Parts: sequence; structure tokens; C-alpha cells
Amino acid sequence: MFLFQSMKERFVAQEIELNLSLPSLEDQRADEARLRQALEERYQDLLIPLSVLRKLPGLLRESNYQVRVRTAFDGRNWKVQEVLSPQKKGPFWGLGVDLGSTGIVLYLFDFESGEVIKKHSFKNPQIPYGEDILNRLHFADKPERRQKLHEVTVETLRNEIKKILSPHPEEALVYIALCGNTTMSHFFLNLETRYLYREPYIPAVSWIDTLRLKELGLPGHPEGLLFVFPNRGSYFGGDLLAGILASGLHRQEEISILIDVGTNAEVVLGNKEFLLATAGAAGPALEGGILACGMQAAPGAISRVKIDPKSLEVKIETIGGENPRGICGSAVIDLLAELFKAGLLDQRGKFVPERLPERFKQIEGELAFVLVPAKDSATGKPIFVTQGEIKSIIRSKGAMYTILTVLCQSVGLSLKDISRFYIAGSFGNYIDPEAAITIGMLPDVPRERFVPLGNAAGKGTISFLKNYQAFQELKEILNNLTYLEMNVRPEFMQLLTGALFLPHTDLSLFPNVARKLGLVS
Amino acid sequence: MFLFQSMKERFVAQEIELNLSLPSLEDQRADEARLRQALEERYQDLLIPLSVLRKLPGLLRESNYQVRVRTAFDGRNWKVQEVLSPQKKGPFWGLGVDLGSTGIVLYLFDFESGEVIKKHSFKNPQIPYGEDILNRLHFADKPERRQKLHEVTVETLRNEIKKILSPHPEEALVYIALCGNTTMSHFFLNLETRYLYREPYIPAVSWIDTLRLKELGLPGHPEGLLFVFPNRGSYFGGDLLAGILASGLHRQEEISILIDVGTNAEVVLGNKEFLLATAGAAGPALEGGILACGMQAAPGAISRVKIDPKSLEVKIETIGGENPRGICGSAVIDLLAELFKAGLLDQRGKFVPERLPERFKQIEGELAFVLVPAKDSATGKPIFVTQGEIKSIIRSKGAMYTILTVLCQSVGLSLKDISRFYIAGSFGNYIDPEAAITIGMLPDVPRERFVPLGNAAGKGTISFLKNYQAFQELKEILNNLTYLEMNVRPEFMQLLTGALFLPHTDLSLFPNVARKLGLVS
Repeated sequence: MFLFQSMKERFVAQEIELNLSLPSLEDQRADEARLRQALEERYQDLLIPLSVLRKLPGLLRESNYQVRVRTAFDGRNWKVQEVLSPQKKGPFWGLGVDLGSTGIVLYLFDFESGEVIKKHSFKNPQIPYGEDILNRLHFADKPERRQKLHEVTVETLRNEIKKILSPHPEEALVYIALCGNTTMSHFFLNLETRYLYREPYIPAVSWIDTLRLKELGLPGHPEGLLFVFPNRGSYFGGDLLAGILASGLHRQEEISILIDVGTNAEVVLGNKEFLLATAGAAGPALEGGILACGMQAAPGAISRVKIDPKSLEVKIETIGGENPRGICGSAVIDLLAELFKAGLLDQRGKFVPERLPERFKQIEGELAFVLVPAKDSATGKPIFVTQGEIKSIIRSKGAMYTILTVLCQSVGLSLKDISRFYIAGSFGNYIDPEAAITIGMLPDVPRERFVPLGNAAGKGTISFLKNYQAFQELKEILNNLTYLEMNVRPEFMQLLTGALFLPHTDLSLFPNVARKLGLVS
Repeated sequence: MFLFQSMKERFVAQEIELNLSLPSLEDQRADEARLRQALEERYQDLLIPLSVLRKLPGLLRESNYQVRVRTAFDGRNWKVQEVLSPQKKGPFWGLGVDLGSTGIVLYLFDFESGEVIKKHSFKNPQIPYGEDILNRLHFADKPERRQKLHEVTVETLRNEIKKILSPHPEEALVYIALCGNTTMSHFFLNLETRYLYREPYIPAVSWIDTLRLKELGLPGHPEGLLFVFPNRGSYFGGDLLAGILASGLHRQEEISILIDVGTNAEVVLGNKEFLLATAGAAGPALEGGILACGMQAAPGAISRVKIDPKSLEVKIETIGGENPRGICGSAVIDLLAELFKAGLLDQRGKFVPERLPERFKQIEGELAFVLVPAKDSATGKPIFVTQGEIKSIIRSKGAMYTILTVLCQSVGLSLKDISRFYIAGSFGNYIDPEAAITIGMLPDVPRERFVPLGNAAGKGTISFLKNYQAFQELKEILNNLTYLEMNVRPEFMQLLTGALFLPHTDLSLFPNVARKLGLVS
């Protein structure tokens, strides 16, 4: 009776063709009962909304009891969303939303092909109300202003979703899975944020029961559902939970680590038995955010740097191949690694200007390495990195390594025991693990253990749409997750000291790097 | 932590006082998680809607984490409907609606006291569109007309519900349980009725998943729920299922019979193992509906008749004690029994005018018994019953007795094996079992086996509000229920013949009646 297609049977929204038996004096079941019982094999205790019941008798008789049924899972029940005649084919879509505090990305997912068929990104419309999250939280202390943040977010989403759906009818969109950090979810849902950033840092909500698209005024099918990823506290949001889901580390026997570097460095260690999470301020410098010449990943941003160790020739790559305007996150680690490998930076992180004097300048009273001279840049100004910035980057990379070390030690493991390192974040799109290992940010373990995830949060929303058991998995992740407060660990500061070297004071931790760079005999 | 009150713990809507632990750096659970976990002992997998989440942080902090929580069960999940500060006391109500095709009755139920605190009845506003159900079904063949019937019904309910709630705020009403026959439920929900009364008689819906009050535009709490009783086919509606629920026969070991005489006679035989139902046209004559002097139960309607067997003095009682205007259902059986007992009617149902010539008259060419002479009636016209009408009433009472007999025989039982006869229907409010036995409508078994239920449909809606397991019970009733088509039973006509006598041709079936009236030596 069913068209079973194993992969699709796990999707949160499904379409099934039914060939129902005809009613007769011997089989006087109501139309609803006929439908429900035909689907019982697959869905127990199916919900059938009034909108479907109203159309059902006419539709069944017009189509001679052959129909296509669209169902969706809300985490508790399967619901019939629509019954269609077999002739009426039309798109059948879900949408993943990565609600970042800077940028928002939409992923249009086709439940028929099981593929992401469109991607669309745009700026978070909250930015005019506060550049960073803390500004926005302060702004939102007054309910009418919080309401405003909510409204601009929903309004923008509404318009952008309509764009991505166009020219197809809204009804094609039956499910949205949205993730964001805890503040973003709260703004999106118009939940109180005042207690989120005041001690003891309490979110209004952790688990959000599935909503209907129309409750938020979002476009889509009238019976369409909206899942907002839960959070595990003010500082551990749905974006990271989505990342865990995308990595799948919570399903494995072996112990892995997920590293998500956004504005903050967030790290999860664990397997299907336990999950240990922490976060720390490792990010900003690594993202390029604090650099005088730093910029977002946009056309003209330097995304790759190579320095020939012999000729000391400097090569750069920019996004879109345009003239360079600044340095974006992915180039920061490259730059540090290349400077170090070329001997332009010593193990303590000090510039070695005598090796290439023409590239070093005093800029605003500080020694700086000029990556792009003024004449070659799009802005007419040099693109550089200062000694002080190098220090910050090293502090960040050291913090990252130390977080990883402390996290492992806290469960009696060493970094060598970790089977996989999932690298996520805008960061994860581009990072060259080799460079990160060279500077001692990531551990010197076999390179195949590093798995780039790209935008793990966005991928997590798609993982969700593809797997109705994700509800259960997320609940288990929340239950299994322990949060480790890194700031209060005494060993953190102690271990950090050694990690402020390139790659580390203890070279036995980086045997391959040491050998390759000739740091050991 | 909870105020357990055993009875109230079964209600479909409940109120619980909670004293939550305060958040701290050691307990950073989200407000939602704090609430959910405090309620977990009692409700698993609780639903918390957005409306509650939005108010929660402010409310918890204002009330120092002491709150009252109102929950409701939708048949699948418990949902938090409202969180209140302990100071804000207010009414907490449910509503039972008996949506009859003639009259509608509202029962306001107080979830706090567990009592029905108000009753309100009014005419079904569909009547102008068709006096009887079949007329309305024909009318509703066009969708816009069906829509009209839906609209007048909901509109009237809306207004009458507002009246019964007044002057209290609508929010006090958190749950409505509504029952009606299958056509009434379909009109109420605006479901297709065209196939309901055309062979093979298929309803659009049997089981209706719980709706929200606002889906139907009914007054009440924004998160308020609406349960519409299911049906077991075109001719076996939610009103009868509500009656079964009210009787409780589906929970008992012993086998009972439920008799509901409205426009139709509907009978259910069974216990917790099985249920056998049937319906037959026994009703109209018994209800007084076909009598020239018949009328609805309203002021001036004759509701009781007594004839002194010796003096042959006729005494009547009217509703409201007003001057008599006509005969209502409850007096019909009385009248027949009294005429028979007084020897004014013989065993074949023929008048014996010679025993009291002044009370018999030819009216429109037919012999009639004058119950109230013209000079004593409110209308200035005599109130009477004709020989032909007596025949119809006897046919109805005979049909009823035969239905009961066939139903019992079909499972190998005799009427003497039945432990209880639940008598329901507008009928059930007034029927004198002794009179019904005298005329051979009900079997001559010990009188304590007769249990009057009054308006069993209305009572069933209250049984529902008082017992969240009613969802499960109704599903089991639907599963256990077999429908017996009385028209196609060959023994029906055969057995009916004997039942067209007073009380019956086989007097051994009515030993007490026979003895009392000296019909046997």
C-alpha cells in the first residue's frame, strides 16, 4: 500500500500515496477513519486537523479514493497536513534557518529529493539596534524595544522566506527548523531577555515545543510547523546544539570533539554516553574581528596567505579575486602559520624583522608586518598585522588549545585519545587544519581526524529536517550535556602559559610540527 | 509539593499550586525547565505554549516562584494553559454542550468544586432552515448553505456561552465538551454532510481530534480546548456515546442496557467486554411528536396523567402548573398505561368507550378520548388522543420492546439477564418505569434495575470533563461497539406482532403486570 523509501521515512515531513478501499454498506467507516486506518501501519495515533477534515469527503470522491497525503511530525504526534489528489503535483519543502547574530542563512530543503536546493543569506536586521549581542540585550530591557527586535526579525524573515519560495505558492513550505544562540531564539520568539544576561543568567526557555508557522506570522502552509532549537543555558545555544546534531558525535561510541569558533569558542567533547561542553573567549582575534585590518568574509577579504619559506615571497588569495581590502578570519591562522614557518615570527611570537626588512614598518608606534603594501590594496592603505595583534591571536590560539586540553583532562583523557575533531563555525568553512596545528591551536594528531563541518548550525537544521528522531536526540543531548565553567578551572591559566608559544613550550606535544620545522634535532 | 485532591486529579483541566526552587549559579535551569520539571511527577512531556512562555519570567519573579498552574489534557498531552500568581483567584470552568437538533443545553462546570453550577437551554437556531434533520440535510447539500447552518450554530453558541459566562471574563472557560448526533457535529464543524444521508451513509469524520476554542471562534481562554464527541456512523452519534459514558455501562462486568429515546430509539447493550448497539423508529409517537395534540415539554404541557381505576376520575399535571395546552412525551406513556389500567383500552389497544361515554367523542371521523374538555384547556379546544394515535403509540412501544428482545437474543441473552436498564433521553427525565412496564414497552423485571439518567448526553459531557481517561474510554467504546441493523433482522417483525398487545400476547413475559391487573387467574 505504501511507497516505502527508506531515507524519506525518517524525514520530519513525508508524502505517501494511498489507494483506499471504497466505502460500501459493508464498510461504512467515516472518511476520516478510512484515512487514519490506512495510515496506521506507519503512523500511530495520527492527528487530523479540521482543515483536512473539511476537504476530505470531496477530495476522496473526486480522486476515487486515491490520494497523496502529506504528514509532519511535531515531536509528539504525526499530523496530516494536507491531502491532495494524485494529479496535483507541487513542491514539498522544508527550510533550515541559521539565525546568526550577524548574518542569517536560509537553506531550502526539498523533502522529495532530500537535497538542499537553495541557499540564501542576508544580514541580521537587529544590527541597527545594537552591533553586538550585549548592546541588543541592553536595548531589549524595555518590553516595547524587545518587541521591536522581535518584529524586525520576523518581518525580515517573512520577506526573505517569501523571496526564497517565489514563484511557488507558500503552501509548499511545510516545516521550518530554526537555530540561533540563546539570545537570538529569545528575540525571535519575543521572550523576556532581561534575566538572560544578569546573574544567575536564566533563559526564559530551554526546550521549545513545536510551534505553528502562523503563530509567528511566518509564510508557509497553514498547518506548517516551526521548530526552534532548544538551548542549554544563556551561553550554550541552539546553534551549537544544531552543530552537535550535524556532527553526529552524540551517536558514536568513540569520543570526539566539536569545535565551533564564532565570536566565542565553543567546544563539546563526548560520545553517545556523555557530553561535556565549555566555551571561552578564544574567538574574536581568530576571527579577525579585533585586527585593525580585519574584515568580514566578503569580496576583497584576504582568505588565504602563503609565504615561500625560501624566497619569502608573499602570496594572497581574496574572496571573489578582487583587490584586497582587509583580512578575514580564515586568513588569520594562515598568516600566523606562514610567518612562523618562514622564520618571520619566532617561537615566542616575536617578529623577526631582520629577515625581511621591507615588509616590516612602524605603524602608529608599533612594529607591523605589511601583508599588502598601500599601492596594491583596494583602499590605498597598507594591509598589515601588528606585533600586539599577533600577541592577541597567539593568546586566542593558546586559549583554544588549552580549552581542548583542560576539557580532555577533566575526563582523564589526552588529546591523542580523541578520534575526531569536528571543526565548525564560519571558521570551519575555510580553516586549514595544517596551519592551525602549525601554530599550536589544534593538536598535532593524524590529519584525517579533522573533519570540517562548514556551517554546522545550518547543517544541523537540515539534519533535523531529515530525521524525525532528532527531537529525541536533542532531548538526550540536553540530558547528557554537562557544562564545564572554564573560568573557574585552576589548571587553565597554568596550562595556558605553555600554549602561548609557537606551537607550544612542550614540543613533544607537536612532534610532527617540530620535526618539519626543524625545531628539534 | 502538590496539593493532591484525588477527584480533581482526573479532571481534564486542573489547577496546581507550585512552590518552585529559586534559580542560582548552581541551578541555572531556564524558567520553562524549572516549571516543566516541577510538574514532571504529575504530567509527563508537558506542552508549554508560547503565550505562557512569554509571561513566565516576569510572573515567576513577581510571585517569588510561587505560582498556580492551570493545565488541560487534549487526549494526547497535558498542556499548560495559564500560569497565575497565587493572589489572582478567578473562576476555572468547563462547559458541557448538548447540541440537540431541537434544543441546545449548556452546563457550566466548575473545575474547582467539581459541580455543575449553571444550566442554560435554548432552541437550536438551525430550525428555521429545516424543521427536522432530513430537511436540514437537504438544505445543506449546497456548501454555502451548509456554511450558513454552521455559522448560525456557532454564532448562537457564541452568544449563549457569553451569556452563561457573564459577568466573568471569558478566560475562565478553559474547556468545552460538545456532543450531538452525527449530523449536528458535522454542521457544527462545517463538515461535508452530503454523503451522510446517501447510501452507503458515510460521515466525514468519526473521531475528532481535540480542537482549540478559537478555531471555531468560540469564547473562552485563548488556549482553551474543544472536544467534540465522536460518532459510530451516520445513525449513531456522539450524543449516544456521551450517554454510554454517563451510564458507565462500558466499565462494568455485568451486562446492562442503555435506552435513549429521542426522535429515534437508540439502544446499547453490553459491558466492558462488548457493546452492541441498534436504533429504530420507536420514538416519534412516544415523544408525542405525531399526536394532533402533542407539544414540546414547555409550560402548559401535560406531563402526567392519572385515571382512578374505580371512579374513572381523570387527573392531569402540567409543566409550570399552567392551564393545559397539549400533551408532551412524558404523559404519552402515562396516558396509555392509565387508560389500560382503567379498562378504557383493551389488550388489543381498542378504546372501550362504553365504560366512560362522556370522555369519548368522534373527532374528524375518528373515535377519540378527550383528556381535557375544550372548556378546561388553555386553547379553548379539547385535548384528546385518537384511536389511530393509540395504534401508533402501541406500535412504537412494541417496537421498543422488540428491539430490546432482539438485541438480547442476538447475544443469547434474555431481558431477565440484564442487570440494569439506563433510561436516557428527554424522555428519561420523566418516564415512570411502572407505566412503561404496564404497557409492555419495558420488560417486567425488578423495578430497581431501572436507572433514570435524565439528559444522558448532557451528563456525558460532564462525565468527560471530570475524567481525562474518557478519551481512552471513548476510543475503546468505538472499538468495542458493534452496530446491529434492526431492519434486516427477520425475527424483528415476527416478535413485533406479539408486542402490539397490551402489555403483550405472551403474558408470561409480564407476570407482575398480569397479576396486578388480574389478566391471569
